[in-house]
Amino acid sequence: MSTSKTLSPTRLSPVELIGKKRDDGEHTPGEIQALIDGFLSGELADYQMSAWLMAAYLRGLSAQEMRALTFSMLHSGKRLTLGKVRAPKVDKHSTGGVGDKLSLPLAPLMAEAGLAVPMISGRGLGHTGGTLDKLEAIPGFRVGLSGAEFERVVARVGCAIMGQTSELAPADKRIYALRDVTGTVACRPLIVASILSKKLAAGLDGLILDVKVGRGAFMKDYASAKALASDLVNTATALGTPARALLTQMDTPLGRTVGNALEVRESIEILSNLGPEDATLLTLELGAEMLLLGGLAKTRPEALRKLRLLLENGTALERFRKMIEAQGGDPRVIDSPNLLPRATKTIVLEAKKGGTVSAIDALALGELSVQLGAGRLRAQDPVDPRVGFEILAPTGTSVGRGDPLVRVHLGKVRLSDDQAERLRAAFSIGRGESHLKSELVLGRVSPSKAK
Amino acid sequence: MSTSKTLSPTRLSPVELIGKKRDDGEHTPGEIQALIDGFLSGELADYQMSAWLMAAYLRGLSAQEMRALTFSMLHSGKRLTLGKVRAPKVDKHSTGGVGDKLSLPLAPLMAEAGLAVPMISGRGLGHTGGTLDKLEAIPGFRVGLSGAEFERVVARVGCAIMGQTSELAPADKRIYALRDVTGTVACRPLIVASILSKKLAAGLDGLILDVKVGRGAFMKDYASAKALASDLVNTATALGTPARALLTQMDTPLGRTVGNALEVRESIEILSNLGPEDATLLTLELGAEMLLLGGLAKTRPEALRKLRLLLENGTALERFRKMIEAQGGDPRVIDSPNLLPRATKTIVLEAKKGGTVSAIDALALGELSVQLGAGRLRAQDPVDPRVGFEILAPTGTSVGRGDPLVRVHLGKVRLSDDQAERLRAAFSIGRGESHLKSELVLGRVSPSKAK
Repeated sequence: MSTSKTLSPTRLSPVELIGKKRDDGEHTPGEIQALIDGFLSGELADYQMSAWLMAAYLRGLSAQEMRALTFSMLHSGKRLTLGKVRAPKVDKHSTGGVGDKLSLPLAPLMAEAGLAVPMISGRGLGHTGGTLDKLEAIPGFRVGLSGAEFERVVARVGCAIMGQTSELAPADKRIYALRDVTGTVACRPLIVASILSKKLAAGLDGLILDVKVGRGAFMKDYASAKALASDLVNTATALGTPARALLTQMDTPLGRTVGNALEVRESIEILSNLGPEDATLLTLELGAEMLLLGGLAKTRPEALRKLRLLLENGTALERFRKMIEAQGGDPRVIDSPNLLPRATKTIVLEAKKGGTVSAIDALALGELSVQLGAGRLRAQDPVDPRVGFEILAPTGTSVGRGDPLVRVHLGKVRLSDDQAERLRAAFSIGRGESHLKSELVLGRVSPSKAK
Repeated sequence: MSTSKTLSPTRLSPVELIGKKRDDGEHTPGEIQALIDGFLSGELADYQMSAWLMAAYLRGLSAQEMRALTFSMLHSGKRLTLGKVRAPKVDKHSTGGVGDKLSLPLAPLMAEAGLAVPMISGRGLGHTGGTLDKLEAIPGFRVGLSGAEFERVVARVGCAIMGQTSELAPADKRIYALRDVTGTVACRPLIVASILSKKLAAGLDGLILDVKVGRGAFMKDYASAKALASDLVNTATALGTPARALLTQMDTPLGRTVGNALEVRESIEILSNLGPEDATLLTLELGAEMLLLGGLAKTRPEALRKLRLLLENGTALERFRKMIEAQGGDPRVIDSPNLLPRATKTIVLEAKKGGTVSAIDALALGELSVQLGAGRLRAQDPVDPRVGFEILAPTGTSVGRGDPLVRVHLGKVRLSDDQAERLRAAFSIGRGESHLKSELVLGRVSPSKAK
C-alpha cells in the first residue's frame, strides 16, 4: 500500500485547510500533503499551523489522516536507504519512562543476534530520560552523526544510535517545536505521526514499540496506552513497516538506576548478564519481538534462548564496546565504569519504618532527578550526567527502620530537606506479606486485520 | 460594575493559558488580562495566540470571559474621553449587510437631533460593504483622523466617522488580523469582544446594535443572530455602556443601491427625505432607539416624529454637509451628486419573464459587487468607488418580460455573461399575488435582568 498514489493536488488555501479540520472534516491525503508542503515553504505560517494543530487536538484525526500526516512528515526530508546493510533492519521505540535505558543494551544485543539496528533517538524532556543524553555520559560519544557516518557504523557494527538530523523528517522537528509551546503535545494522532516519521526515516524493515503505562509514563492508564499502541502499530504497518507493540508497566522505575551515567553503568551490567531482573527480562522480551519481526527466530522461546546466550557469553557486551568505539566514545568504560562521570557527593536515604517496599513512585523520582540536574524542563537546558538515583531497596524488599532505600548522586545542585522527604515518600512501605511481583508486560498489540 | 476590580496577577504561562482553554476551563479576568498583555508585549507569540483562539473557537467563552476579554482589549490602548463634548454620546453599529449605508444618514441625523455621534467604523470585507469605503467615495473625505481631530469634529459638528487608529484597541487590531488568517473569525464571543472593544473605546454613553439576519448577513438564522445580539447588549451594558439591539432582515439588500459612490448618493436621498422606503424606515427605527437611549425622547412615537421632521426640513442633510466639510470632503456633492465618481459604463439587465419580484438575493449581489471591484476579499485590496448596482425592480414590483431589473455600474472590470446571468438569477420572479412586504425589524433585544 502506498499513500503516495492517493495524493492529488488540492486547491484549499491555508485558511480553508484550518477551517476544514475546525469543522470536523476529514482531510484527504492531498490536503495533508498541502498542509506540510505549505508549512515547509512558508506559505502556511507558524500561527496557521498552530491553529490547525489545536483544531486537530480538539477534533482528532482519522486513521487515514494519521497515516497521511505520518507519510507527508516522513517524506519532508531524506529517507535513509542504508544500501550497504544486508541484515533485516529492526528498531525499537519506547514512549518514555523513568529508568528506561533499554535502547542501550538492546541495540548491540540485537546486532549480535543478526539484525541491523539503525536507531534514531531523542533527548529527555520533563520527567522522562532520553537515550541520547545517556549515551553522551560516555566520554567522547558522538550522537550527532551524518547520514553517511550513521550508515557506515550500522554496516560495520550492526547498530548505531544517533539524534534526528535536520535532513530527517524536518517537518516533524518544526511541528514538534510548535506543539511544545502551543499546548498541543498531548494529542495521540500527532504523537503517532511524530514518532513514526522519525523512526521510519531510517528505512526500517520492522519496528517494535514499547508503550509505557502508569504513573511515570506519558499514558497513565491502560486504555489510552493501548489506543496509542494500536495507532502506532497500524499506521506503521499501513505505511509498509511491520510493527508490534508491548504495553509495559511504568508505575515503578525500570531497573535500579535513574540518571544518565548511572544508567550507562546499568546497561553494561545488563549486557554482562549481571543486571537487575526486571530490566534484563524486558530487554529479552523486546529483543525477542524484534527477532521474530526480523525473521531471525520462529518462536518466542527460541528467540529468548538465543538472546539469553548472547548475554551469557559476553558477545553482546563486546558489540556494545564496538558501537561506543565507532561513535567516538571511550570503549574502556565497558571494563572500567568508573571512567564515567561521577557524583561529587552521594547521600543515602534510609527507611523511617520497617516493612516491605510495595511501590516506588516513578513520577516522583523522574521529577526529582530533573530538579537535581539529571534532566531538563526545556529542550535547550543542559543536563548533568553525574546526577541520579540508585535504588537500594527495589519493590519486594523487606526493610527495617534505618535500612537504606536510595543513594542520591549529586552534581552542582544540593538536595534540599524537602526533596529528601519527597524522595523517601516515593517508597511505599507496607506492613503486608512479601510483595507479589507486578507484571512487566501488560499487553501485546499486533496490527488490526482491517485493511 | 468594573471588571478591573477583579483583576489579579496570574502565574499561568502562555502554554498553561492555552491548555486551560483547550481543556474547557473558564479563565479568570486576570488570566484574560495576562493573555492580552502577554500578546502585546511579545511574551505570548502569534502562534500561541492563534492556538488559544482556535481553542476558544471550539470551546467557547463564558459571559464572564467575554466581558473580561472585551475589557482587556478595550484597555489595550487609549480610550477617547471627548471632554469637550457635552451631548450624550450614542453610536450605532451594524454587523454588516449588503446595501447597508445607514451609518451615513444616521450620524448627521442624530447629531441634528441633539446627540453626539463619535463613530468608529470599519471597511468592507467579503460580500459586505464598509462605511469607511463609502465615505471615501466622496472626493477628499478623510477617515484617518487623529484622536484630537476626531474630538474637534464631534465637538463642532456633533458627529464624525473615522477608522480604528493604532491607538484605539490595538489588541483588537492585531487579534483580528490573526483571526482572519487562522479560521477563527466566525466565533461569537470573539466577534463580541472585537466589535465592542473598538466601539467602547470612543467613550460612549450608549450603543445601538443593528444585528443583521439572513442570506446576505453574517448570521444566517434568527437564533444565532439573537444570541449574538444578546451577547453584545449584555457585555456592553455590563461594562458600563447601556446598549440595545435590533434584529433586522438581510435576505434582500437594504435600499436600492449596492456600491460605494451609489450608496453615498442614496444616503443624500435619505437625508433629503427622498430615499427608498425600507432604508428610510430603518434609519428612523435605529435613530429612535438612539434617541431613547440618549434620553432625548421619552417614547418611540415621539422620537420617530422628531427625526422625521429633521429629514423633512432639510436640517439633517445640512448637518451631513458640515460633517463632510469638517473631514476634508467636497461638500458640493450634497447638491451635485454627479461630482461623485461615476461608472465608465452602465448596463441594464432585463427580466426574461413577467411576474412579481419576490426576493433579491443579497449574498449574490454582495459577491458579484466584490468581483466587479466594489469590495475586497483581502484587507489590503483596493476598492473601486464607481462600481455597483442600482436595483430598478425592488421586491414587490410587477415586471413584464424585458422590463429593467438592475443597472450595473462598471469600472475596470467587465461584466461576464456568467456574472450577468447570476445577477439576473438573483431576482426571484414569482407568478403570485403582489408581494407582501417582509418585516424590516424582526426583533428587539434589551439587557438581561441577570446581573
